[in-house]
Amino acid sequence: MGRAREPGTPPAITLLTDFGLEDAYVAAMKGVIAGIAPAVRVVDISHQVPPQDIRRAGIVWAQAVPYFPPGTIHVAVVDPGVGSARRILACEGRGALFLAPDNGLIGQVLARREVRRVFSVTRRSLFLPEVSSTFHGRDIFAPVAARLSLGLELDEVGPRLRSYRREELPRPILRRTRRDGRAVIEARGEVITIDRFGNAMTNLRPVPGRRLTRLEVRGQVLDRLSPSYSAGRPGRALALVGSAGYIEVAVNRGSAAERLGLRVGETVRAVLG
Amino acid sequence: MGRAREPGTPPAITLLTDFGLEDAYVAAMKGVIAGIAPAVRVVDISHQVPPQDIRRAGIVWAQAVPYFPPGTIHVAVVDPGVGSARRILACEGRGALFLAPDNGLIGQVLARREVRRVFSVTRRSLFLPEVSSTFHGRDIFAPVAARLSLGLELDEVGPRLRSYRREELPRPILRRTRRDGRAVIEARGEVITIDRFGNAMTNLRPVPGRRLTRLEVRGQVLDRLSPSYSAGRPGRALALVGSAGYIEVAVNRGSAAERLGLRVGETVRAVLG
Amino acid sequence: MGRAREPGTPPAITLLTDFGLEDAYVAAMKGVIAGIAPAVRVVDISHQVPPQDIRRAGIVWAQAVPYFPPGTIHVAVVDPGVGSARRILACEGRGALFLAPDNGLIGQVLARREVRRVFSVTRRSLFLPEVSSTFHGRDIFAPVAARLSLGLELDEVGPRLRSYRREELPRPILRRTRRDGRAVIEARGEVITIDRFGNAMTNLRPVPGRRLTRLEVRGQVLDRLSPSYSAGRPGRALALVGSAGYIEVAVNRGSAAERLGLRVGETVRAVLG
Repeated sequence: MGRAREPGTPPAITLLTDFGLEDAYVAAMKGVIAGIAPAVRVVDISHQVPPQDIRRAGIVWAQAVPYFPPGTIHVAVVDPGVGSARRILACEGRGALFLAPDNGLIGQVLARREVRRVFSVTRRSLFLPEVSSTFHGRDIFAPVAARLSLGLELDEVGPRLRSYRREELPRPILRRTRRDGRAVIEARGEVITIDRFGNAMTNLRPVPGRRLTRLEVRGQVLDRLSPSYSAGRPGRALALVGSAGYIEVAVNRGSAAERLGLRVGETVRAVLG
Repeated sequence: MGRAREPGTPPAITLLTDFGLEDAYVAAMKGVIAGIAPAVRVVDISHQVPPQDIRRAGIVWAQAVPYFPPGTIHVAVVDPGVGSARRILACEGRGALFLAPDNGLIGQVLARREVRRVFSVTRRSLFLPEVSSTFHGRDIFAPVAARLSLGLELDEVGPRLRSYRREELPRPILRRTRRDGRAVIEARGEVITIDRFGNAMTNLRPVPGRRLTRLEVRGQVLDRLSPSYSAGRPGRALALVGSAGYIEVAVNRGSAAERLGLRVGETVRAVLG
Repeated sequence: MGRAREPGTPPAITLLTDFGLEDAYVAAMKGVIAGIAPAVRVVDISHQVPPQDIRRAGIVWAQAVPYFPPGTIHVAVVDPGVGSARRILACEGRGALFLAPDNGLIGQVLARREVRRVFSVTRRSLFLPEVSSTFHGRDIFAPVAARLSLGLELDEVGPRLRSYRREELPRPILRRTRRDGRAVIEARGEVITIDRFGNAMTNLRPVPGRRLTRLEVRGQVLDRLSPSYSAGRPGRALALVGSAGYIEVAVNRGSAAERLGLRVGETVRAVLG
């Protein structure tokens, strides 16, 4: 059941946290990893998740994880419950390993059927000798990830679990109906996240064989999907399928969030003809 | 024509983008690179270029690139035209390789005579299997850079180009004249960029054999070049030759931008006696 | 006297600066290191130290350094005196090497008795061929750190020093007294730093064998140490021993700095019974 690994290429460890880059927290984790597994590569996914924002962490995680090679060890420490009785999960799925607090995060990177095994990380001898109640990223996640990169088997971290918390993105509501005599799908979704460029990602996906004929958000009505951000005049709002496969609202050479006043949670209505 | 490379030391890939660090974009690029070339080093130049600011991207690129060893693969993705018909350039010069959109960026790191060969990156088999219209950094730049680091020859990426876009910094206007009976050079330049410390870099360089005797910006008149930021009293404005070789306006232990109200584009007048 | 090093695992170099991530400064340092020591790992501690804030730099450094393995080369460039006569120190202690300006920083990572040897970095042949007066991080610190990682001995960088500047955190004032007929320790300390989560770290440590029975800061009175951030109701202020071993004031799922109006320097009074 072990992971296939070519000799000489240790897997990478990725880190996703809400620690920011101004404090020493991320570096302390990297120091612990370097002490146990000096040859492993550590790749930052992001440390700029807003403090304790599990939803946002999951969205960022889900957009990065699929692009890493099999065998990668993905570590997420967005952990408002640190020091409480919440468990730490070690999970196998999609050929990769995942370490995360049991707060729902796993549900955003692995569909239920993709999860092969889940364990509770409890074996003290894998941790730093002293475990604080405030910084499990350094004291538990980092040393366990480092040891997994050296070949520690997943079932050695603690007992296997049957259940764990899953949080998933809100699903859009789809309704088959008729408009102007034609069968269409009406979809009601919402803005899920806004990126640095002000592009607003929704939870709506294109439907194969259907064409988007109308998308409405905050009074702005768009009548098609554009092929790219640079379609249409600069400053004009447009809808397109973003790089994560979801429909986005964007503005060519501008910020859709600013121009249309969009926020996370904003309702989006679409008609697919 | 190939690049010299010592055995056992794969070249580094550097990344310069306007993606920021709060989203998953940079990590997705690194994941793609790790999947193709797991041993290559990836070094961030910056991901904090203001969105779509090609000028600023070029200035940052030009300040970092000369310090990397020969064989480095420099990737810049500041790309307002993504998904449009704009080309992607692969370029050889100064012993290094460069990947950038054809939007002028190359002109800021390579003088015309330094450019040895330029190609248009078009060969689909080098890209990710699915190429989005919104994220060529992940789908094209990353896999092509990774393959170049493994030894792919530059002429395998697509057709050779005869022309491409170059954008260069505005040049100062120099005028030979007489002041108080002596031959001097009067120069009119501008503030090109402002760094984190509030130091204002201009497009003026010192002239060998000449001494700066006057520099004026927003009513502030300085009468010499100082040897370092810490010359003179704290809080005092001064001019000096910055680490990129251009004349800068700075304030000892303070921000020149704040203290003098300087912005990019501000006119700077100098007299070199 | 040399550092023990296993064959095949070059030591890591860590970087701590106030350069920020929007400019090319950090990348230029990494380029210089890659040119001299292409196989060495470079780990960022932080580049977000507020400009020229030596105190804050030392706190971040002290929280990260202990978690890196022996042999690591720690480089700190928070250097308001760059280009002046201030010296650059190369220091051995705790099994690691340290490079820093002689501005007090060393005192925050190494106690006086932990410092084994200190040298002044003066040997020009170790530097870049051209040394600017504004960017010693690139021109001196980076090449010297890279050469140390390749085995350069510490006593080759320049003359040994007998004295150097040390800055240390302000010490709390402790007073043995009686309260309600019992012998207690009254401590007066201050808020030393505030992290991204708004947790306010003080310079007070728990005293073995004593129990904190009262902590007062800006009118807020707490009567015990909590086991973790998530103890008590969300939004409630609490005191706990943070991950660096100091007493912190925090708010469960919120920011203590915001909720209580805390700033660095704020007085904190504690009673240990």
